[in-house]
Amino acid sequence: MAALVLKRTGQKMPLIGFGLWKVTKSTCADTVYNAIKAGYRLLDGAGDYGNEKEAGEGVRRAIADGLVKREDIFITSKARRVLWNTFHAHDHAKQLAKKQLELWGIDYFDLFLIHFPISLQYVDPNHRYPPEWFGDDGKVHLQNTPLSETWGAMEELVDQGLAKNIGLSNCQGSIILDVLRYAKYEPQTLGIAMTAYSSFGPQSYLELGMAKDSSSLLEHSVITDIATAHRKTTAQVLLRWATQRSIAVIPKSNNSNRVVSNLQCDAFNLSDADIASISALNRNYRLNDPAEMDPRLAIFA
Amino acid sequence: MAALVLKRTGQKMPLIGFGLWKVTKSTCADTVYNAIKAGYRLLDGAGDYGNEKEAGEGVRRAIADGLVKREDIFITSKARRVLWNTFHAHDHAKQLAKKQLELWGIDYFDLFLIHFPISLQYVDPNHRYPPEWFGDDGKVHLQNTPLSETWGAMEELVDQGLAKNIGLSNCQGSIILDVLRYAKYEPQTLGIAMTAYSSFGPQSYLELGMAKDSSSLLEHSVITDIATAHRKTTAQVLLRWATQRSIAVIPKSNNSNRVVSNLQCDAFNLSDADIASISALNRNYRLNDPAEMDPRLAIFA
Repeated sequence: MAALVLKRTGQKMPLIGFGLWKVTKSTCADTVYNAIKAGYRLLDGAGDYGNEKEAGEGVRRAIADGLVKREDIFITSKARRVLWNTFHAHDHAKQLAKKQLELWGIDYFDLFLIHFPISLQYVDPNHRYPPEWFGDDGKVHLQNTPLSETWGAMEELVDQGLAKNIGLSNCQGSIILDVLRYAKYEPQTLGIAMTAYSSFGPQSYLELGMAKDSSSLLEHSVITDIATAHRKTTAQVLLRWATQRSIAVIPKSNNSNRVVSNLQCDAFNLSDADIASISALNRNYRLNDPAEMDPRLAIFA
Repeated sequence: MAALVLKRTGQKMPLIGFGLWKVTKSTCADTVYNAIKAGYRLLDGAGDYGNEKEAGEGVRRAIADGLVKREDIFITSKARRVLWNTFHAHDHAKQLAKKQLELWGIDYFDLFLIHFPISLQYVDPNHRYPPEWFGDDGKVHLQNTPLSETWGAMEELVDQGLAKNIGLSNCQGSIILDVLRYAKYEPQTLGIAMTAYSSFGPQSYLELGMAKDSSSLLEHSVITDIATAHRKTTAQVLLRWATQRSIAVIPKSNNSNRVVSNLQCDAFNLSDADIASISALNRNYRLNDPAEMDPRLAIFA
């Protein structure tokens, strides 16, 4: 499978991964097991997806059954920074990473990411996990932990062998450049590997009230025309639009047939004209914008 | 004149200022003198505009002639961070501020800004001033000074009375939020005052090869129609589009009539429909993007 080589470690990161957001908890272990069986080698999870334990069960079963070895799978996770606090940021970073590894039942993450460049008040995991955006009073509580402190904690995870690679997510050029100025280990998946999310459009955000447009890219006439011409599914076309330009994808599906067909999105090539037509659909959408939670969190402004 | 109140100091910042970029050096002192005489109370300069000494002459002459007192004028300047180096950032910050104040012939700046969230290799002012983007070899040389260090130096300028207010320029949401997490003095002109540049369009960038579209907003039919209806100049319409929404403007002109008429842009109101029509001209242009100098400087990406 096509892969990107991570600069510092030389480790290969598959271009097509399986996304765990919204994967049903009760069937997650089976879904992950079957995804691995179908050929997926990258799993993209996060502390707030609420299904890490089940995903880890699927991984361990796949290893126990001899489908893969641990080193054949690339597991990424995102450390949502609500778990840090002003007093013990390093301790909390380690606490979180260890808790997530324990849930997965694995020894290390291949890629550990800062989920957002946002620092919120610490929430004890025994009080609520995953902690999400709001405090007990339903409000957002900021915390003054500079990103440099969090990045330092991430680097310690590398030194301790708990993360092979560390990176950023939802960051912009100006803050990435700042991290590069103080980083001991440069963020991976920057200039090296870019991962696209929500390749099929904003549907997942509709039920959260975080998207207004209900039109699915999976049924858009531009996409269906291209899919028909190539005899592929519209999902495969949308994924190929990214991977053909070396952008990794992490589609999720709770449907086993689609899990398989999404993985096969690399088995054909779009024409330059196809790619241009799809790119022209750009509507400057910003999904997953924390500013909708609280205007102080306008990190994309 | 309409003004914005700066949060920390309570100081008033006029909504309409006079921009010094590209003001001809030989006539700059007269231009500034006449701008003050016409009623301008905010001057927007920068260490790399190359006319600070002459602008300062105009200010001092206006004060000497009794047109204004120093405290009636709001002088902003931007500290281009190429003057910092890895070893003595604080010293260089102070060196730069003092050099700029000395050029202006004044004791303090009302607002001192970090021009870009970019750190470049130190250039001795005796070697070249203003230092601009490129080294002697024509290349861009990055320097690993984190923004937190520069912000700390800016705060010392406040403590020393050399700057009344400090702020950011060309920054995005994610890095502004990070500065707020470690700032002793929060950046002014954020949530408090936003200043628009290039209100008339990209013409000034054309000769620098930094803009491709030569169409002037001053001659755009949407703008001329609105200007005709209000019996105003197209420049006044474009400036009013900003100031009516509490966004400060800093138009520059080397033409004394236009210097005066630009200042009068507050003497009328656009209709909601006018504002909507002008806003609809948005083309997502990004002027003054350092990425055009060097792809590593993609702070707006």
